[in-house]
Amino acid sequence: MASLAPEIEVLAPVRDSGMTRDKAIAFAEEKELPVNVTSRSPYSIDQNLWGRSCETGHLEDIWEAPHDDVWSYTEDSGVPRDPDELVISFADGAPIAIDGRPLPPLDIITELNARAGAQGVGRVDMVEDRLVGIKSREIYEAPGAIALLAAHSELESVCMELDLSRFKRSAEQRWTELVYDGLWFSPLKSALDAFMAEASRYVTGDVRLRLHGGQAVVTGRRSPVSLYDYGLATYDTGDTFDQSLAKGFVELWGLPSRVAAMREHRAGR
Amino acid sequence: MASLAPEIEVLAPVRDSGMTRDKAIAFAEEKELPVNVTSRSPYSIDQNLWGRSCETGHLEDIWEAPHDDVWSYTEDSGVPRDPDELVISFADGAPIAIDGRPLPPLDIITELNARAGAQGVGRVDMVEDRLVGIKSREIYEAPGAIALLAAHSELESVCMELDLSRFKRSAEQRWTELVYDGLWFSPLKSALDAFMAEASRYVTGDVRLRLHGGQAVVTGRRSPVSLYDYGLATYDTGDTFDQSLAKGFVELWGLPSRVAAMREHRAGR
Amino acid sequence: MASLAPEIEVLAPVRDSGMTRDKAIAFAEEKELPVNVTSRSPYSIDQNLWGRSCETGHLEDIWEAPHDDVWSYTEDSGVPRDPDELVISFADGAPIAIDGRPLPPLDIITELNARAGAQGVGRVDMVEDRLVGIKSREIYEAPGAIALLAAHSELESVCMELDLSRFKRSAEQRWTELVYDGLWFSPLKSALDAFMAEASRYVTGDVRLRLHGGQAVVTGRRSPVSLYDYGLATYDTGDTFDQSLAKGFVELWGLPSRVAAMREHRAGR
Amino acid sequence: MASLAPEIEVLAPVRDSGMTRDKAIAFAEEKELPVNVTSRSPYSIDQNLWGRSCETGHLEDIWEAPHDDVWSYTEDSGVPRDPDELVISFADGAPIAIDGRPLPPLDIITELNARAGAQGVGRVDMVEDRLVGIKSREIYEAPGAIALLAAHSELESVCMELDLSRFKRSAEQRWTELVYDGLWFSPLKSALDAFMAEASRYVTGDVRLRLHGGQAVVTGRRSPVSLYDYGLATYDTGDTFDQSLAKGFVELWGLPSRVAAMREHRAGR
Repeated sequence: MASLAPEIEVLAPVRDSGMTRDKAIAFAEEKELPVNVTSRSPYSIDQNLWGRSCETGHLEDIWEAPHDDVWSYTEDSGVPRDPDELVISFADGAPIAIDGRPLPPLDIITELNARAGAQGVGRVDMVEDRLVGIKSREIYEAPGAIALLAAHSELESVCMELDLSRFKRSAEQRWTELVYDGLWFSPLKSALDAFMAEASRYVTGDVRLRLHGGQAVVTGRRSPVSLYDYGLATYDTGDTFDQSLAKGFVELWGLPSRVAAMREHRAGR
Repeated sequence: MASLAPEIEVLAPVRDSGMTRDKAIAFAEEKELPVNVTSRSPYSIDQNLWGRSCETGHLEDIWEAPHDDVWSYTEDSGVPRDPDELVISFADGAPIAIDGRPLPPLDIITELNARAGAQGVGRVDMVEDRLVGIKSREIYEAPGAIALLAAHSELESVCMELDLSRFKRSAEQRWTELVYDGLWFSPLKSALDAFMAEASRYVTGDVRLRLHGGQAVVTGRRSPVSLYDYGLATYDTGDTFDQSLAKGFVELWGLPSRVAAMREHRAGR
Repeated sequence: MASLAPEIEVLAPVRDSGMTRDKAIAFAEEKELPVNVTSRSPYSIDQNLWGRSCETGHLEDIWEAPHDDVWSYTEDSGVPRDPDELVISFADGAPIAIDGRPLPPLDIITELNARAGAQGVGRVDMVEDRLVGIKSREIYEAPGAIALLAAHSELESVCMELDLSRFKRSAEQRWTELVYDGLWFSPLKSALDAFMAEASRYVTGDVRLRLHGGQAVVTGRRSPVSLYDYGLATYDTGDTFDQSLAKGFVELWGLPSRVAAMREHRAGR
Repeated sequence: MASLAPEIEVLAPVRDSGMTRDKAIAFAEEKELPVNVTSRSPYSIDQNLWGRSCETGHLEDIWEAPHDDVWSYTEDSGVPRDPDELVISFADGAPIAIDGRPLPPLDIITELNARAGAQGVGRVDMVEDRLVGIKSREIYEAPGAIALLAAHSELESVCMELDLSRFKRSAEQRWTELVYDGLWFSPLKSALDAFMAEASRYVTGDVRLRLHGGQAVVTGRRSPVSLYDYGLATYDTGDTFDQSLAKGFVELWGLPSRVAAMREHRAGR
């Protein structure tokens, strides 16, 4: 809001008046303001298309396991049921189809939330750091997001060159920090978005996912622009990889460490 | 080897003579060299205390799901069985006990391999990048390691300050790259080890883990040196966190983005 | 070459035949091949529009100062002469004019090489790490590049938001590593280029530079899209920065360190 | 303070009462409080052993060059004078002697401030980002620090292995951010200190520095634990570097980019 329309003043009356959570609930009840939290349901819940989070109540004792009533988007993974297998297709990093049916992003998330949630996929129970420097224990449910991430990440492994995927890991960590910290519209976020768009140019193909027992497991991947090359990877007869080059590579790769080790011996430390 | 005893020459006869895997197996059979791979068992297997990896054979078709015969350290997570719950204790980042029984590291890995493997925890099926620039599909089983990582990581969330844990993520990525790339004895590895030792000083406490259905799920954590502070985290009456400070923080936190957004509007882009 | 036209085989006869530098020079002289290095001029020199590098000869003794005959693009900064002051204009990160005269990039480098070189700007004497793991001592002259970097970097300080400029530092370090390591056409380089293009969108304005005595010193900067705001930066009457917000910011900024310090005291370490 | 003695409350009366700089000066004059800033000397000055900073006054116009009266620790580099050459010795990263005379750190800084300042070394004129999100123009003088950094950095190039020095650059950037942002006593700072101590173990040797015309230029370096190896670096006869290994290294080094380029051609993008 501050970024999109800086002329609008943001009011945060509960925060700025110093109300505790108890008083804010009492105030809302007294004034008949429509809030879906009552003093009987002790959780503070946020939810949207991507997921659902839950905090406070018994969760504040971080040694206590979450009670069953905190979960809503996901089934209990311990109940025996048949697995669900599906294929997600991606183009340039974005999901475009499930089981061969082209779908808009909204439908992909909705369907994955339903199917992955039904298998108990997507529960997270963690202590995290709020922006203002406080640790907090949160329960998340994000079945569709977690299934998508598993599939997408594995497709990247197939289609993305090593140096790029190593650097992308630190870039995406920074991206998530910015988003978590409320800086979606910041200049750094824009520049990282440009990086991600270029990095994702060849993240195209299909991933087969097995949803079962709380897990989303990749069981196959294929891509018309894969960097996986059967001829290079195999050790079999007909191998197109020139093993003789490996000697020079390995020798020089370790050279700086070897020179440093010789110094260590010489210095007697 | 090159680092510890640079005067010893390393010979790699299979690589340097350009033998394919097929020929190397035939050579070993002909010369009666003891190798536990035959032309009938097509996998290339490495294994040690920490885990087991398996490649080649049908795994080279990355669209094909792993056959059941590739697994050895882990049971099928789809078979219904009772969950196993345990408590791992850590001191300064290292595991020291299971269920209150002090154990040396070797016994901890061994016991966790057995108990987590029995619940199907620790299977990994991935395409990865070998050092020499080739993508390869590998199956890993590391039940003990994966259970330990889940517990350790959550204890860090409780005991480690935010800036440190954010930076540690990039430092540990670099650490794993060095180890994967064969640079265990490199100067950078030593300096990162010193960083990790200091960073782990307060990673002390207990984590309760539920092993079931292929998953190792943290259900509780506690620490005598926790940074989680119930009084700060709660929104309830008696809150010791001064909410009035949050206004100043949030306003100034977003200030640079707001100034940049005003420029964007002014520039009309 | 390997990236642009992978079907063309690269030959490196001197390297692959194991010729030393001495023998290669003798071979070239015998065969009357046109190389501008003779056994009398002992330096190995590379040069292009951006700069000139010089190695070997007496430079291999890294305790010895460079002799005067190694320099070619730059004058001796110790000779007294009048300073040269100029204004470089940038649009979206790229230089577009000198002293108000619009110029194509080639002319900007050429003119800056001449004017900065005449003031002795741009000499570098360093030990560096070649890709193959060997340290080497090199002399560089890059007068235009160093003047441009000084101006560009300061304009970024004026026009770039803090988080972006902090992250850009690690991104540009990686960029330079890739370029030094011969990976100009790599996928990571392309993705970093996309990042840089977006990051540079508002790096627009003028920088006044004083070239004198071997130094390129910024003495002024101005930009129509500056993030420097006189009203915010001053402490004077009429100040538009609400100092009262600073209290909340500073208190919460230091909160995680304070909580960690209280733990340290409690733990008595 | 908040970290060392969290029980002590920090008061910031000028900030918290919302006084402007003008009013604070008037208040101090009225109450006869000893402050060395008057309404006639318009700069806001901070100074200590390491350096001196100066802001406000005409400096708030960032297009205007600094007037001569802002400088105090450094002479005008434009005045012709004889150069000063010195040798700084380091042990494990810390300076221990000048010109062969062992000195405690305090004397090293003091002497370098005097000698480098006399040659005009150490002036910085920059726009920077204050922690609270405001850009500010500052003048710094840090003659000793800048001379030390030049010498230390070059010694690192001689004694530090490549991977370590590349990673150290991002670690030291983070270190400086923490220090600038007031987090000297934070847990991340401690862990980075441990990293730096280990990384500096072999940064031992001498650097010869030429101070002249505002510049501190390294003209020689030597170390008993150098990683620079004349035999490896030269191309001359007797070369101990096996050039034949380079072929394998270079081929495999570029392999991932080559495979990515072949994809690019195939995909026709």
